[in-house]
Amino acid sequence: MSKKIVLVTGGARSGKSRFAELETLKCGPKALYIATAQAFDGEMTARIATHRARRGREWETLDAPLGLSEALEQTDGSGPRLVDCLTLWLTNLMLAERDWEAEVARLATTLQAQKSPVVLVTNEVGAGIVPENALARAFRDAAGITNQRIAQVADAVYLVACGLPLKLK
Amino acid sequence: MSKKIVLVTGGARSGKSRFAELETLKCGPKALYIATAQAFDGEMTARIATHRARRGREWETLDAPLGLSEALEQTDGSGPRLVDCLTLWLTNLMLAERDWEAEVARLATTLQAQKSPVVLVTNEVGAGIVPENALARAFRDAAGITNQRIAQVADAVYLVACGLPLKLK
Amino acid sequence: MSKKIVLVTGGARSGKSRFAELETLKCGPKALYIATAQAFDGEMTARIATHRARRGREWETLDAPLGLSEALEQTDGSGPRLVDCLTLWLTNLMLAERDWEAEVARLATTLQAQKSPVVLVTNEVGAGIVPENALARAFRDAAGITNQRIAQVADAVYLVACGLPLKLK
Repeated sequence: MSKKIVLVTGGARSGKSRFAELETLKCGPKALYIATAQAFDGEMTARIATHRARRGREWETLDAPLGLSEALEQTDGSGPRLVDCLTLWLTNLMLAERDWEAEVARLATTLQAQKSPVVLVTNEVGAGIVPENALARAFRDAAGITNQRIAQVADAVYLVACGLPLKLK
Repeated sequence: MSKKIVLVTGGARSGKSRFAELETLKCGPKALYIATAQAFDGEMTARIATHRARRGREWETLDAPLGLSEALEQTDGSGPRLVDCLTLWLTNLMLAERDWEAEVARLATTLQAQKSPVVLVTNEVGAGIVPENALARAFRDAAGITNQRIAQVADAVYLVACGLPLKLK
Repeated sequence: MSKKIVLVTGGARSGKSRFAELETLKCGPKALYIATAQAFDGEMTARIATHRARRGREWETLDAPLGLSEALEQTDGSGPRLVDCLTLWLTNLMLAERDWEAEVARLATTLQAQKSPVVLVTNEVGAGIVPENALARAFRDAAGITNQRIAQVADAVYLVACGLPLKLK
């Protein structure tokens, strides 16, 4: 199995996770779902449950709210992996006051060293009005920088809207 | 006249309505404008007037703030129709506490049964920062789900930016 | 050197400025950076410094927070120019209570008369939830109208996401 790094971006409820799931299963029959979501509240718990219910028996799940590079290193060689999603991972890093720029750089390096495929889901968060909240502005800057960095090391990049992919790379 | 379902999406003031009007008139010389907007305030009244002034004599107008599927059923066979827009229709359904998921499912079924063309305008609302307001989050989820569902039954889907269309399907 | 007008749009931190810089340098070895940003606060000062540090010695800088058409008229014939960005220029016009629609019309006319290339950066600001703030709604409408108008007179238009361009025109 050859390495293939795929980045899938899009707005909220654009169908990006579903498209990414299909891309992952194209790479192999047994897939690992690497979840970065943390269930802080009822809304998030419900959203996680919806995603989990949609995925079928071909998926194993691994939680990696912070240690994404470690999770990829430990699971390499076993089949395709889906990371859903980079923006929640970034949120977790910022809330935990980690050095997110160092973690993103490490992720880029880790991805380039992988032997098994990785599909990563991220979000477009910068196409609205400038947020009034300084933290929100800092987050959307960080998300944009992360997306650019990971797109550089990806073999394919898709923008999803209305459930339909546009190939960016 | 053969059925043709076209979905046109884009951000605010992206030129999507104008592009959708031209697509509709390509399908026939006399077109029906199915308006979902309700003039609750002066800003909305002004926006409706601007859109109406731009359209010429080739357009008849029908108001359908809630009963969109009924409007399509009743006007089928008479020529191309433009629905502007799905996100306002969804807003109206949610404000009226209707079962929007059932209405969207019904719309998808209705569209597949049409004999005359339908062009539908919708909005990209999910590419900004996650809204702090829970109702706004629920709405952007509903809008994204609606867009995916209608895109599935559409023959063509366009994303408009800067007045220019990108073909998604 | 033949006239070439290029419009580059995208969300915040999408990589649009960097892409626009490369497009500008393709047009000639010595380029002029026409900056519309005004450093009102520390955050803006830092952002301007980051952009300036990234550009190398091949760039001269000219500040034009309001008089963009004049700046283009005065610098025509000397080589490629990069305008970064239209949305800040529009913000400045609105804050100064200028007639922004007249200024945008004048810019469109000025661009068509240029002998040297111009690359213009703008922003996608209309793909989030409708802002609660009336001024924010007015601004995103104005930005969308400006983008459509300038795209009409452009020879090429790109939408950038994750640092990658999609050709719209």
